[in-house]
Amino acid sequence: MSNDRTWRIGVAGLGTVGAGLLTFLSEHPDFAPAGGRVVVTGVSARSRSRPRPFDISSLPWFDDPVALATSPETDVFVELIGGSDGPAKAAVEAALRAGKPVVTANKALIAEHGAELAVLAEAKNVPLLFEAAVMGGVPAVKIVREALVGDEIRSVAGILNGTCNYILTEMEATGRSFAEVLAEAQRLGYAEADPTMDVGGFDAAHKISILAALAFGCAPNYAAAEIEGIEGVDLLDIQLARDLGYRIKLVASADRSPDGVLVRVHPSLAPLRHPLAQAGGALNALFIEGARTGRIFIQGPGAGSGPTAAAVAADIADVMAGGVRPVFQAPAGSLTPFTPVDPSKSIGRAYLRLTVKDEPGVIAAVSETLAEAGVSIESFLQKPVENAPEFLKGGIPIVLTTHAVAESVLKAAIERIAGLPAVLDRPRLLRIARI
Amino acid sequence: MSNDRTWRIGVAGLGTVGAGLLTFLSEHPDFAPAGGRVVVTGVSARSRSRPRPFDISSLPWFDDPVALATSPETDVFVELIGGSDGPAKAAVEAALRAGKPVVTANKALIAEHGAELAVLAEAKNVPLLFEAAVMGGVPAVKIVREALVGDEIRSVAGILNGTCNYILTEMEATGRSFAEVLAEAQRLGYAEADPTMDVGGFDAAHKISILAALAFGCAPNYAAAEIEGIEGVDLLDIQLARDLGYRIKLVASADRSPDGVLVRVHPSLAPLRHPLAQAGGALNALFIEGARTGRIFIQGPGAGSGPTAAAVAADIADVMAGGVRPVFQAPAGSLTPFTPVDPSKSIGRAYLRLTVKDEPGVIAAVSETLAEAGVSIESFLQKPVENAPEFLKGGIPIVLTTHAVAESVLKAAIERIAGLPAVLDRPRLLRIARI
Repeated sequence: MSNDRTWRIGVAGLGTVGAGLLTFLSEHPDFAPAGGRVVVTGVSARSRSRPRPFDISSLPWFDDPVALATSPETDVFVELIGGSDGPAKAAVEAALRAGKPVVTANKALIAEHGAELAVLAEAKNVPLLFEAAVMGGVPAVKIVREALVGDEIRSVAGILNGTCNYILTEMEATGRSFAEVLAEAQRLGYAEADPTMDVGGFDAAHKISILAALAFGCAPNYAAAEIEGIEGVDLLDIQLARDLGYRIKLVASADRSPDGVLVRVHPSLAPLRHPLAQAGGALNALFIEGARTGRIFIQGPGAGSGPTAAAVAADIADVMAGGVRPVFQAPAGSLTPFTPVDPSKSIGRAYLRLTVKDEPGVIAAVSETLAEAGVSIESFLQKPVENAPEFLKGGIPIVLTTHAVAESVLKAAIERIAGLPAVLDRPRLLRIARI
Repeated sequence: MSNDRTWRIGVAGLGTVGAGLLTFLSEHPDFAPAGGRVVVTGVSARSRSRPRPFDISSLPWFDDPVALATSPETDVFVELIGGSDGPAKAAVEAALRAGKPVVTANKALIAEHGAELAVLAEAKNVPLLFEAAVMGGVPAVKIVREALVGDEIRSVAGILNGTCNYILTEMEATGRSFAEVLAEAQRLGYAEADPTMDVGGFDAAHKISILAALAFGCAPNYAAAEIEGIEGVDLLDIQLARDLGYRIKLVASADRSPDGVLVRVHPSLAPLRHPLAQAGGALNALFIEGARTGRIFIQGPGAGSGPTAAAVAADIADVMAGGVRPVFQAPAGSLTPFTPVDPSKSIGRAYLRLTVKDEPGVIAAVSETLAEAGVSIESFLQKPVENAPEFLKGGIPIVLTTHAVAESVLKAAIERIAGLPAVLDRPRLLRIARI
């Protein structure tokens, strides 16, 4: 443990996480959990002069992150630029080609190009670490990559986007619409000016694609993820789901079966007493199910400067401790994208909201149609709606939950229901989480 | 990643965990998460002929675990014997002195002798890993040791003994006494024939002492832990606590303050909706609070052959991946036991159950006495008890919870209450968990 080496760190990207990391390192000049010392020997960002919470004037500046990545003064390259392509990808590739360990918080880069980058890293036998890319300060990557290698993971499922979780929690708590809460979240800085990555489910899909690759020893296959965001979640559904004993969460899941892997991001109903339903606000939460270990649950802050910078610092410590393992469990040369499972064959329970004419015989018609289509009803709710929203078109909502049914059967049943004369709008489908 | 090395493993101790490990390795001959191969080249246990779920006849047998630990055929020594001293300690010391990495599931050994063993390991620059010693299949050790090094941990608190959690859960669910449920747990194999280590809180104290050392960069200080078991938890307290909105759990906690570290194991009240209250059966659950990361919660199976063997296998994989860090965050040579905080100065809320004569003026006398002693009552409950237990001596129970109060003030108040003529028995004190 007489490791006196000085590790020279180059940091590209000085947003929230970069500033948090530099603050941490300057406040902890003795940060050396595995011996040695850490020194920041270069920084790079889009603008040198932008006001920042951390003074960078004493640090060598690089206009070009690729130059920082390949500088002889850089021992470890830390990429906090973001984005699946462009300068982030160019700089990470350059660092790995130059045989330098890379630490990144970039989920889009790893989810979309992780397999190619793993080949570059393993060719030089250097680590490529990305703890901060998933669940912020909660070490989901380390747990799946390192702690569960003595098990066969069957599924990972949870809440991976804090912005969506905040919006859904606020909608339920305050009775406001998606648009109102989103606008407030943007004012408060909890949501981006362009919120598509978050509310569209793409950020969660990047993260679950990474976890699936780690869990199942495959290349990430972001393109195969089935993605639905929360833009279509109406306050009415949140309230009706609650009446049925559920809370709506954006659930990202990856399930392995003999046929392959199914990766999905969907607004889903979780029973009110379930830990996922109880993870409110900006929390992230994840279940990992292993054949030998059973179910592990982890929960914590999924974003923010402090937690994310702590995760980056832990990765730097891992580089310093030495030791290299395959980026995605299996050697990079043998990685193949997982085989996606046809989602139409997946089986699960569902929540359906119908907008129907308020007249006799409607419920009978709906339930007969479902029965004929092979869908079995588990629960049924019709209740008066105060201040009925305009989209009900003067009709009334009825909601029902189904027993487990194949998605293809369910979709066919929805088509038949949509064609009934008393049904005024397309039925709204939400999945009940298999958790 | 072209690591073709064969790692020869010697396994001492072939109980539940040892058999689980050998089964896993035989079922996964390609277990090599970091490249290389694993081969079991020797086993040792008390009895060679005892029936086991795994056939050991083809494996080289060692009567003496020390001989296995130092054998030239052993690259990694896996100690699953158990016990803080005796053959386990001798064999681990011998392996480390011979410069061999050690993986152990032995919480007593690490809690009571971890600092000395860390010195031996670090002198030879070999890893000493013990993931399976705490929370079974839940990687608490790795999270605290590796994932949170970029943070300052303030406290760890949770449920670390599955046997106690099972007993308390069953008592509440079935309305049976501690003795009845314990006897059943022994019949089912969930509790040892001598259950003292578990129900006395000593097992949880070993585990929290290890987590405290990892979290705060100190030597384990098991001797300084304040320990109370669950033997004194009466069904009546479980029921009355529930009436007040709490569930009784055996909570182990370690808190750092400027004065030092307070390590405690106590039956404690957790609010019914709190995740610790909802971790039922044999589950383990832990909160880790960091200055930057905030609160992380982890939960899962804390014992059992599968989860524990998976944790041991993950440690073996860590050895194979290479890299060595200090056993307890700080270099072993500089480790000092943490300074224990005087528990009488600790401040917290409390639950008190009094057995009093059923006569007028008693409540007034109790509340006046508490007020004079400086203890402020938060809630108060008196209700009739069906089938009153004999220990009530014909009296009736009243229970109250206090606002936060220094332990010394509370203890003094209890003495005064115990002296009141209408109070028939020593008041029963339980802490309300600070979680």
